[in-house]
Amino acid sequence: MDAAGVSGQRGPADHKRRQQILQAADEHFRLYGYRKTTLADIAKSIHLSTPYIYKFFDSKQAIGEAMCWHCLSAALSAVEESLAATTSPVEKLRRIFMGLEGITWRLLSEQRKIHEMVTVSFEENWESIARFREGIFEMIRRVVTQGRESGEGRESGEFERKTPLEETSRAIARMTELFYHPTLLDQLGRSQQDEALAVANVAIRSLTA
Amino acid sequence: MDAAGVSGQRGPADHKRRQQILQAADEHFRLYGYRKTTLADIAKSIHLSTPYIYKFFDSKQAIGEAMCWHCLSAALSAVEESLAATTSPVEKLRRIFMGLEGITWRLLSEQRKIHEMVTVSFEENWESIARFREGIFEMIRRVVTQGRESGEGRESGEFERKTPLEETSRAIARMTELFYHPTLLDQLGRSQQDEALAVANVAIRSLTA
Repeated sequence: MDAAGVSGQRGPADHKRRQQILQAADEHFRLYGYRKTTLADIAKSIHLSTPYIYKFFDSKQAIGEAMCWHCLSAALSAVEESLAATTSPVEKLRRIFMGLEGITWRLLSEQRKIHEMVTVSFEENWESIARFREGIFEMIRRVVTQGRESGEGRESGEFERKTPLEETSRAIARMTELFYHPTLLDQLGRSQQDEALAVANVAIRSLTA
Repeated sequence: MDAAGVSGQRGPADHKRRQQILQAADEHFRLYGYRKTTLADIAKSIHLSTPYIYKFFDSKQAIGEAMCWHCLSAALSAVEESLAATTSPVEKLRRIFMGLEGITWRLLSEQRKIHEMVTVSFEENWESIARFREGIFEMIRRVVTQGRESGEGRESGEFERKTPLEETSRAIARMTELFYHPTLLDQLGRSQQDEALAVANVAIRSLTA
């Protein structure tokens, strides 16, 4: 599990103990949920002392951060990979919205306890959330930039160059939040494929103006 | 307080007892919060029995619904009024985003306990929330329709007619949620005037394409 740059991590990154702790935490979080698991529970399950765990992690949250970033960076990678299959910036933008919607909805329906941990991470504004949002913003800015430079006709999806790149990319990134924010998903309680497509289309039309 | 059409209401709508109960509930909710107040607390404070309250309201939630709708319909009316001051559909759309952002942010910062009640109403998917969303959608559809029919040049804010009216209005209405959803506001913890303007501009550009 790659936790490079995630806050609250200590000691050598590739230490086998770190991996062992993360694996035990993963099992506990999946079985009992993040909220109900204590550092002592994790330590006990792999016959370590709680102080020993502090050699690698600042707190339970630091373990959660590592796992949460593992989960969210995997989501970013999956969306990123889906973009490679098309050259059209219009289609890429659509895939970003649809991909984020699909992945987070599957997480909620299939990995309930991990979804709960992600919910906590949003409630407490963990660093992994800021990195996730930044990752989405950068992906969108890349696609918008590509669309502006593609030199194709407007019909084939070229984006106009008048709108401010940063502001617009930031706003579109913000719009994707409607489809991945765990609390919104919980409250709605259903998949939002149609809405994600409709909002993606608003973003796309704003760029092809 | 107009609670017409709000669910869980019983007995005559203009009964002075109903108003008295709502006023007592309002005071309790503002002082102690919706969650901590019981129907018995409200009844006691105005020397009524709890069963007597049931003549007018199904439950504490029904009282909450009436108050919540009072608050949210006032927000809708305030935004609606701000639209009357301009004929430009572009400016109107901007005002919808900015107005919703401003009103809900003020509610959070100035009337903390009422904001908490609205948070509960979102968590529990109260009917008042569905009505609020529908009100925003209808306001946006009206503005988009007006923009399509205005017959002015594109520069002066005429909207193109190719995009599906319902789908686009629904998607733009969805986008406003980023600026009024109480949980998102809580987690962000700051006003979002710039973001609301940037997202409004995406919606506007998508319509003037």
